[in-house]
Amino acid sequence: SVTLFGVVDASISGYSSTSRDLNGATFLNPFYVNKGSVKASRRELANGAYNSSRLGFRGTEDLGGGLAASFWLEAPITNDDGQTGVSTFARRSTVSLSGGFGELRLGRDYTATFWNDTVFDPFGTNGVGTNLIFTANAGFNAFNGTAATPVVGVPSVTGSNYVRTSNSIGYFLPPNLGGFYGQLQYAFSEKTKYSPGLATPDVANNSRQGRYVGGRFGYANGPLDVAIAYGSSTIGDQYYVGTTNKVNTLNLGASYDFGPVKLFGEVSRAKNKLDYETEPFLGGRPDIDLTGYLLGVTVPVGAGLIRASYSAVKYDNNQQEVLFQPRIADPKANKLAIGYVHNLSKRTALYATIARVSNKNGAALTVGGPSFVTSGGFTPKTSTGYDFGIRHAF
Amino acid sequence: SVTLFGVVDASISGYSSTSRDLNGATFLNPFYVNKGSVKASRRELANGAYNSSRLGFRGTEDLGGGLAASFWLEAPITNDDGQTGVSTFARRSTVSLSGGFGELRLGRDYTATFWNDTVFDPFGTNGVGTNLIFTANAGFNAFNGTAATPVVGVPSVTGSNYVRTSNSIGYFLPPNLGGFYGQLQYAFSEKTKYSPGLATPDVANNSRQGRYVGGRFGYANGPLDVAIAYGSSTIGDQYYVGTTNKVNTLNLGASYDFGPVKLFGEVSRAKNKLDYETEPFLGGRPDIDLTGYLLGVTVPVGAGLIRASYSAVKYDNNQQEVLFQPRIADPKANKLAIGYVHNLSKRTALYATIARVSNKNGAALTVGGPSFVTSGGFTPKTSTGYDFGIRHAF
Amino acid sequence: SVTLFGVVDASISGYSSTSRDLNGATFLNPFYVNKGSVKASRRELANGAYNSSRLGFRGTEDLGGGLAASFWLEAPITNDDGQTGVSTFARRSTVSLSGGFGELRLGRDYTATFWNDTVFDPFGTNGVGTNLIFTANAGFNAFNGTAATPVVGVPSVTGSNYVRTSNSIGYFLPPNLGGFYGQLQYAFSEKTKYSPGLATPDVANNSRQGRYVGGRFGYANGPLDVAIAYGSSTIGDQYYVGTTNKVNTLNLGASYDFGPVKLFGEVSRAKNKLDYETEPFLGGRPDIDLTGYLLGVTVPVGAGLIRASYSAVKYDNNQQEVLFQPRIADPKANKLAIGYVHNLSKRTALYATIARVSNKNGAALTVGGPSFVTSGGFTPKTSTGYDFGIRHAF
Repeated sequence: SVTLFGVVDASISGYSSTSRDLNGATFLNPFYVNKGSVKASRRELANGAYNSSRLGFRGTEDLGGGLAASFWLEAPITNDDGQTGVSTFARRSTVSLSGGFGELRLGRDYTATFWNDTVFDPFGTNGVGTNLIFTANAGFNAFNGTAATPVVGVPSVTGSNYVRTSNSIGYFLPPNLGGFYGQLQYAFSEKTKYSPGLATPDVANNSRQGRYVGGRFGYANGPLDVAIAYGSSTIGDQYYVGTTNKVNTLNLGASYDFGPVKLFGEVSRAKNKLDYETEPFLGGRPDIDLTGYLLGVTVPVGAGLIRASYSAVKYDNNQQEVLFQPRIADPKANKLAIGYVHNLSKRTALYATIARVSNKNGAALTVGGPSFVTSGGFTPKTSTGYDFGIRHAF
Repeated sequence: SVTLFGVVDASISGYSSTSRDLNGATFLNPFYVNKGSVKASRRELANGAYNSSRLGFRGTEDLGGGLAASFWLEAPITNDDGQTGVSTFARRSTVSLSGGFGELRLGRDYTATFWNDTVFDPFGTNGVGTNLIFTANAGFNAFNGTAATPVVGVPSVTGSNYVRTSNSIGYFLPPNLGGFYGQLQYAFSEKTKYSPGLATPDVANNSRQGRYVGGRFGYANGPLDVAIAYGSSTIGDQYYVGTTNKVNTLNLGASYDFGPVKLFGEVSRAKNKLDYETEPFLGGRPDIDLTGYLLGVTVPVGAGLIRASYSAVKYDNNQQEVLFQPRIADPKANKLAIGYVHNLSKRTALYATIARVSNKNGAALTVGGPSFVTSGGFTPKTSTGYDFGIRHAF
Repeated sequence: SVTLFGVVDASISGYSSTSRDLNGATFLNPFYVNKGSVKASRRELANGAYNSSRLGFRGTEDLGGGLAASFWLEAPITNDDGQTGVSTFARRSTVSLSGGFGELRLGRDYTATFWNDTVFDPFGTNGVGTNLIFTANAGFNAFNGTAATPVVGVPSVTGSNYVRTSNSIGYFLPPNLGGFYGQLQYAFSEKTKYSPGLATPDVANNSRQGRYVGGRFGYANGPLDVAIAYGSSTIGDQYYVGTTNKVNTLNLGASYDFGPVKLFGEVSRAKNKLDYETEPFLGGRPDIDLTGYLLGVTVPVGAGLIRASYSAVKYDNNQQEVLFQPRIADPKANKLAIGYVHNLSKRTALYATIARVSNKNGAALTVGGPSFVTSGGFTPKTSTGYDFGIRHAF
């Protein structure tokens, strides 16, 4: 008995990101003419702006004695262009054994640390309304390591363990603990280890890269849901250089349903660390800290739901003081998003969202769509966008 | 409630394309020895020679009040070698909202202009019997722009909007209009726009490439079905060069079922245009016109169906007259195809088709399989082929 | 009526391959210090260590009169990392017509010669327990030609016809022959043929590469099952060089179920041949012979099954004698595997397997996981591994 399920979500979406020339005439360059602003925009048929488009297969077998075996294979799909079918089960691919002891789950799954970023976001980290904690933490190179080389139509499962992790072993507490819930998760790096280590063949060895360790613990009862999560993701590991690059994340989220209004909140702290086997004489690369806040609200209106959120992030590059040189201000950004969902049925809904990101000090976060123009002396400022679409689940 | 459907169609198919050396001894080269002809042939297990092999998922939800939501995800598959599974939904991936007003359909779908080419072809644009209007219009570089770089096992959805278009918004008339039917379609180019335009980062900017606008209007009642379609597909757009390359298509098809015999016919006119922001002094590249005709017939014979068609295409390169230089004759080709389908049931059929293409003046259209040998002074002449296979639908 | 079926099999698996420095001080290099041994190891979440993970669609239509049409589309999946979804039907993709005459099957299917290697292996050629006949015959370059260039998440169907072959036509005897069964199989190379051959455009022409011809004939009745198979696979074919490279395989396997114990055995002989249109003056490349033996046993224990096997392979490079030069000993290897399967239900099982391969004279076969370190004067010796996992079928 296999259940076939899915979501097709399509929207007309527009994105617009404006950079500004912040330079003016100076003593050394008295005739500088400010170049004003430049805008990169795109309008498209997008997918998954309310719920991520997907197609999946799942099932459960009762093994008797309270034991059950189950599986879950879920593919991301791009129904706007049809390019991505069931080419991967990158969203989730797990096999589980569950019973009174809880659940043991093997395969690719969400990380323990991602849950708070999405569960306590009124926009569920989908569409232009997605909170900035997600946008900043998901950012490749800037925060989460190098993205995998893209292959047309084949979503890659490598490159970042921020949202999901492959090759993981998860343990979940059983559901009958009076509202308490929790999980522990370990993901193998699956890198070859050479012993003695000097036999390691390539200089750019990446042993342990891909490893993830995390956990989450929460309490949901009546109108209250609150959870804390911690995780450590190894995004780089160089044997010969003697460095290990990790992103450690701690976040706390909560929601409270007052009935006419539901409130959401989250605080997140992530640290991109570079550990040295031998600390360099002048100190190593400083850590990069990423702190984020989220405040959200949803208001049911008949068959509809109004959603709004404010989120803000701040990078701290922990720069060392240099004599006679002004300290460069750390990048930061904030975002306001508001939207409305109209349910035609349980499975089908129409929705509209608008959002605006304001960047400062070089932060370059967008609502989606094209990147800011940064060449030619332009600095990223505001990014705005909208989604107007339909979500159909089956 | 999801419906799983599909077609597995396999055939033993053979293709043979013969080029001829049309040169002879000349005044300048009196000892030239004609090289005769050279044949490129292949025999294979093919798929989709009667009906395109596919696997799909579709469903409809009744929303009440005459409204319905539906989805359709259909993958092309290659059951002869198993290389292409459900890696894409390149055949169709749409979500629809329908009601008394008609149907609004979002996603990847057939273009309005393609329908007449396939509906009024006795061979349904499948296998060696496929009509030449399709073959010539589908031709990459020669007519429809550059093909996407192939990725093993992942059908590409980019490169041409001749048959289907991604990121489209379609509107369909409701079915209860006394036989009249129709559709309008717009597909986003999804290219980034820079403002001011001079900020456009790459020289080979392709803004608006991929855009498609089209419509189709028809009448089907009793034995008669007739439809006209027009569409414009942007296949190239260079901001700095100031050129836009479009293919505009107009076609008209009809079929009439006399009972013992059903007749088919189509006329198609497509124009590959290069628009210049500033017209070059000596004139730009002339348009390439492609005109095609199709005449077809099917004859039911018990559980079987005899199918035959004659199609012809003619390119017009609109060359400018050059003094003292003979005008190069425009390429043209015609095709004869005949076949038989034997239905073992509604879902399963055996079939056989043979076909022959005759090329003139450099046209190089084949029935399928290997391309003509054109190097070494050879000119493409005839291409012949056969399909002998089984189609099973589920 | 489509049946959706599959297997999700996940295991914690470890592999360790140790190479040793077999060199010592010599007259020419009296101060050589032996470098000892070097180990390459990996621990991972693996898939398919008991049964290959898969997702498939199949169905049958009764056509009346004893005739039936059926299809089978089966995708390999990697549920440990989710990277491979239903991107291909590389495991099997066939359409069949069957009746009193037997079955005609078109598409991608197991080769006739592979069956004995897997049916008579207690470990079914899955996991670390896989017999060495499989490991050695599946070896690319070393025996079966060049592997296809990998594409992320898209299993390739080209490169070797050892396990399966694409574009094949198979005939199977009907099932009612008093225990006798059999099959014949032919797979098209699908390469373009040029006539005259000198028109062949590329020097590295590979016409006929990919062709497979084979058959299998057996008898299964009561406790006995015995089968013999022969096949010839063309792995290379160069028109201008005038060489054809084939692997010809003959194998014989049997099993006998005594009740408390079931015994398995197989003998396999494969020959990698290079045929020359014009035999080189000093003789061509000698054939490479690969001989393999397998002895296995399974013992049911309540809801469980103990499995054990011993397998051995020997390469014969058929080197020519060279005067005053010692003959290089031919590579060989043997393997011992033992495991236990505990059935929680018909569909769900827990399993554990351990295995050890011993290599001699340069053979480099592993139980899986990382390759031996061979650079720096190291010679492959032992490879050990374990699987500990769960298999859930649906």
